[in-house]
Amino acid sequence: MNTFGRIFRLSLFGESHGAMLGVLLDGVPAGISVSEEIFRADLFRRKAGAKGTTPRLEADIPILGSGLFNGKTTGAPLLISFLNENIQSRDYSQILAQPRPGHADYTSSIKYGGFSDYRGGGHFSGRLTLGLVAAGVIAKAICKPIQIKAELIEAGGRKDIESAIDAAIELKDSIGGIVQCTASGLPVGFGEPFFDSIESVISHLAFSVPAIKGIEFGSGFYAASMRGSEHNDAFLDEHGKTGTNHAGGINGGISNGNDLVFRVAVKPTSSIGKTQNTYHLSEETVKPLSIEGRHDVCIALRVPVVIEAITAIALADFLLLSEVGAKFKIPQ
Amino acid sequence: MNTFGRIFRLSLFGESHGAMLGVLLDGVPAGISVSEEIFRADLFRRKAGAKGTTPRLEADIPILGSGLFNGKTTGAPLLISFLNENIQSRDYSQILAQPRPGHADYTSSIKYGGFSDYRGGGHFSGRLTLGLVAAGVIAKAICKPIQIKAELIEAGGRKDIESAIDAAIELKDSIGGIVQCTASGLPVGFGEPFFDSIESVISHLAFSVPAIKGIEFGSGFYAASMRGSEHNDAFLDEHGKTGTNHAGGINGGISNGNDLVFRVAVKPTSSIGKTQNTYHLSEETVKPLSIEGRHDVCIALRVPVVIEAITAIALADFLLLSEVGAKFKIPQ
Amino acid sequence: MNTFGRIFRLSLFGESHGAMLGVLLDGVPAGISVSEEIFRADLFRRKAGAKGTTPRLEADIPILGSGLFNGKTTGAPLLISFLNENIQSRDYSQILAQPRPGHADYTSSIKYGGFSDYRGGGHFSGRLTLGLVAAGVIAKAICKPIQIKAELIEAGGRKDIESAIDAAIELKDSIGGIVQCTASGLPVGFGEPFFDSIESVISHLAFSVPAIKGIEFGSGFYAASMRGSEHNDAFLDEHGKTGTNHAGGINGGISNGNDLVFRVAVKPTSSIGKTQNTYHLSEETVKPLSIEGRHDVCIALRVPVVIEAITAIALADFLLLSEVGAKFKIPQ
Amino acid sequence: MNTFGRIFRLSLFGESHGAMLGVLLDGVPAGISVSEEIFRADLFRRKAGAKGTTPRLEADIPILGSGLFNGKTTGAPLLISFLNENIQSRDYSQILAQPRPGHADYTSSIKYGGFSDYRGGGHFSGRLTLGLVAAGVIAKAICKPIQIKAELIEAGGRKDIESAIDAAIELKDSIGGIVQCTASGLPVGFGEPFFDSIESVISHLAFSVPAIKGIEFGSGFYAASMRGSEHNDAFLDEHGKTGTNHAGGINGGISNGNDLVFRVAVKPTSSIGKTQNTYHLSEETVKPLSIEGRHDVCIALRVPVVIEAITAIALADFLLLSEVGAKFKIPQ
Repeated sequence: MNTFGRIFRLSLFGESHGAMLGVLLDGVPAGISVSEEIFRADLFRRKAGAKGTTPRLEADIPILGSGLFNGKTTGAPLLISFLNENIQSRDYSQILAQPRPGHADYTSSIKYGGFSDYRGGGHFSGRLTLGLVAAGVIAKAICKPIQIKAELIEAGGRKDIESAIDAAIELKDSIGGIVQCTASGLPVGFGEPFFDSIESVISHLAFSVPAIKGIEFGSGFYAASMRGSEHNDAFLDEHGKTGTNHAGGINGGISNGNDLVFRVAVKPTSSIGKTQNTYHLSEETVKPLSIEGRHDVCIALRVPVVIEAITAIALADFLLLSEVGAKFKIPQ
Repeated sequence: MNTFGRIFRLSLFGESHGAMLGVLLDGVPAGISVSEEIFRADLFRRKAGAKGTTPRLEADIPILGSGLFNGKTTGAPLLISFLNENIQSRDYSQILAQPRPGHADYTSSIKYGGFSDYRGGGHFSGRLTLGLVAAGVIAKAICKPIQIKAELIEAGGRKDIESAIDAAIELKDSIGGIVQCTASGLPVGFGEPFFDSIESVISHLAFSVPAIKGIEFGSGFYAASMRGSEHNDAFLDEHGKTGTNHAGGINGGISNGNDLVFRVAVKPTSSIGKTQNTYHLSEETVKPLSIEGRHDVCIALRVPVVIEAITAIALADFLLLSEVGAKFKIPQ
Repeated sequence: MNTFGRIFRLSLFGESHGAMLGVLLDGVPAGISVSEEIFRADLFRRKAGAKGTTPRLEADIPILGSGLFNGKTTGAPLLISFLNENIQSRDYSQILAQPRPGHADYTSSIKYGGFSDYRGGGHFSGRLTLGLVAAGVIAKAICKPIQIKAELIEAGGRKDIESAIDAAIELKDSIGGIVQCTASGLPVGFGEPFFDSIESVISHLAFSVPAIKGIEFGSGFYAASMRGSEHNDAFLDEHGKTGTNHAGGINGGISNGNDLVFRVAVKPTSSIGKTQNTYHLSEETVKPLSIEGRHDVCIALRVPVVIEAITAIALADFLLLSEVGAKFKIPQ
Repeated sequence: MNTFGRIFRLSLFGESHGAMLGVLLDGVPAGISVSEEIFRADLFRRKAGAKGTTPRLEADIPILGSGLFNGKTTGAPLLISFLNENIQSRDYSQILAQPRPGHADYTSSIKYGGFSDYRGGGHFSGRLTLGLVAAGVIAKAICKPIQIKAELIEAGGRKDIESAIDAAIELKDSIGGIVQCTASGLPVGFGEPFFDSIESVISHLAFSVPAIKGIEFGSGFYAASMRGSEHNDAFLDEHGKTGTNHAGGINGGISNGNDLVFRVAVKPTSSIGKTQNTYHLSEETVKPLSIEGRHDVCIALRVPVVIEAITAIALADFLLLSEVGAKFKIPQ
């Protein structure tokens, strides 16, 4: 379903080429200052325009529809929507005839019995991450003073990201990348045993972001080749500070007060100009397909702010949940 | 919380050294044959006893407490519990004084205000995966004829797993490993856009398993260094069959009918005989700790059946959910 | 929270005097024809304008923001919003100084630390039932051919409803009423034991409607004075048809195939022109209050279509859930 | 489903004639003292034995399976189970041939395709309220010092309850009754707008109790015949104290600090010795049925402690949820 969260809850809606899209937020504490202005920086970071990103440019101005009074949250649901304005009218129906490899065209068409909106990926489009970023802005305001920072540390297998993008543009191809995220200032005790471990909740949200195909916490996959004596982070003081941070700040699914660190793998954009041979349903044969339209050479360039957003969303919910246990006074 | 699932729902309970532990299952369809016998094979695979596993041996006989009548499920909740019998009485209180690195000792003590059961890891113990495996047996019965197979493909960085374990035993150390899981026979259409993508749900469950620190689907982290033209899996026929399977059987979060493939990284067991220097809370200093008791040199050896279980749990829920949309006839 | 439902899920948002309000629907099956037109009849029935209703008139035209393609649902979330246009600007701040008896002014002010939007009741306003009615229209389309019919059967203690309203208008007072709802054509088997009994789910939704203070199914409170031999509905045939219907069509929380029948009690509108003596917070004394503004003399007049809506919402969810169990084929 | 609650969550399991039954509790704060002893008084009140109750006597000793350490809750799930010991072996299969009027025999048989456990009502039995009462004991400990008190105020239409029962016994018939519940000491602010109003949550739980067919808060159904000037509870001081309490302590779904008051209607027990004419499925005709076995003449006698329990369960969850909003400090 399109809703996530226990206390701080978000519901995504909209399509790439429909009238509007956005997010409905519930469980937002009353009294937080919210204006169009506070969304600007993160929405700008998510925007296209730079080399390697799609030429589709949208204003992406948040419409604050409910849940605010005198510039502050009221505790009622917050509706944040965006208009789709820069839509190019053209015939998308060939998508049904020859589903694009790596896209949801084929799976969504089968799943929804042919009724899904296939224009620009419809509800499956990466454009829906606009709602995640908007929710992330509110979540960051709740989480303050926790600091969350994500960055692209590798693209197309190279640390020199610009050269990787130039190469891909030349080939009319696309590339993936790796985004690393760090959150500092978490208290000890966020997360729950088993199904609501920090790793469970963050990975759940991370894989809701289109194009993410892997996630690892702390030393992650490298930990599989380590010995326990190397991997264990010894404690240095009574606040739980550790010398190393192979665990990525999490023991038993619960924050230990050190930096939360994880990385996600972003696959290369599925839409490429280069010709691909793939099955044509009505012609009943494999034949060449070259995808026109506007797309990102390296969608990973626009992913860091989305990963920050989902991290903030997870932490805001944990923060609000942590009030429950922490403040409860046992009746005598 | 300790409950997961939308239709097929499971709730874990119990502790490593308490009276009992197990799982409560809800949403199990009526009419499935269940006896103690069907649990045997998977429970045996999870059991200790082999080289590299803990010497703590438990009978692990499932007690079927409710939800069955004449050997078949009734549609009512199914309680499956296990007794803890082979518990060694000793003083665990030093755990509070000097929390073990890599364990939940420190975080759970803070989170629960000193009330958590710290004996053998308490509710955070890997012993709780017994409930997951039991739930997985029921889930596999629901998912039939989908085939799910997980195996350890690497331990301590080596493909020759036995030699890796011998080396670790000699060092009184522990090692991690990588488990790969494949599910064959999925229809097209399992999974939901965004928050209930197949990747989201499986990763959520996978990170509920103690010691898992990474997960990747299909080509996973390697995809980040691929080009789109390499990574895209071209379709070969009208059933969605693809030539390659870099996507791990998932497009847009939804199964495309090809094999579901993913890998998880298992960190080395935190409990090691080798001495570690870590903070002692009451003595207010860093000092040596060597962990006694019975533990696994390579917990990854016992993980494959648990990963199969969580995969079956996810797929059973998707299967039951898929009945909703697929069978609904639009009223005229 | 502002979300309800298991498969067919709705989230309410908005305020009485904010920019907009409405409902976000998830879990709507793909392929249902939806246009502005299908909302007209039910929205009209909810509207003010008749004698005994508020003079605040709104156009209440549904804005269909997402989830539709070529006039049909796609399976993605459906956003239905409405603008608030006929808002009278005036100073509402006296509400904080002297909370109106019977309203949420006092409780919401305390609960949200003074940040709630108190204009016209804010998020607590009966105007939010607009979202329920819109959701009900979609739910009715899913439930077809089940017939749902609610009507006001008593107002101010009288069956002659018009005379009751005339009397209340003359007294500058308000009156309550009783609404009866009947749903015909349910199959046997909707509902779940215990927490999702039909009565549990419908009552949950009914008490979400402002002004509802009681609900009873079948013979309801009168059943408390009956004998078992009178109350038991004997079966007449193999389809579960009963001669009497004291149970209101529900046995053990599950539909038995007979008409679902229940009644709700609607309290008199809290806003009255007549002077009331109530506490003034800043003047620290009890003093007279006469409420200006536009309000309903008998809000119960506008409740039947809302009760139909919540019934349809409950039944649509049960219908979709019933697909799960009913169609599942036990693997051999 | 068989789970309810947002933070304080309970899952019911078991059958009337199965091996065991009980409740699994999650979200219980750590540090609460729990022993077998604290359940005694409420379990005794629920027990049979008095005139008008079933002769089936069970020991009903709670088995505390998990979630406790040194006599205190740990924050991990609490499993409380009970054994069924006093089961009379006999042939129940006639229930399938001629379903008892007023019971779930017919609906559950259809719903679960003939696989449900029909012995003594199976999972639908009133015996399952044992789990509710046990959960209520823990909930009361969380809610302290809130006082919850329910009592039977009417049976078979009479205030003289004993004479009503004598009359029913003589007729081999059964009678219903009305139970009133009052909770004192609630703070202002429990409850949420719309779907988690106090009335919504309590009614949801109340209708999970077998035999409940109506509920009303404050003046309830009588409010429908009142005028607003009569029904509105004027405030008397800054703490929200009101002179009258027609609202039953709830404004806008949220507690206003006055006593929470509601009543439920309990239908007469469906099982009666008196002969009833009802359809026989295999003989394909209506024919006499007289129900043997042990049953309650007036189940309402045993309902008050169950209603206290569901009230405590609702309030414990609201209390824990209220920590979230109330204690959150807006970051600057």
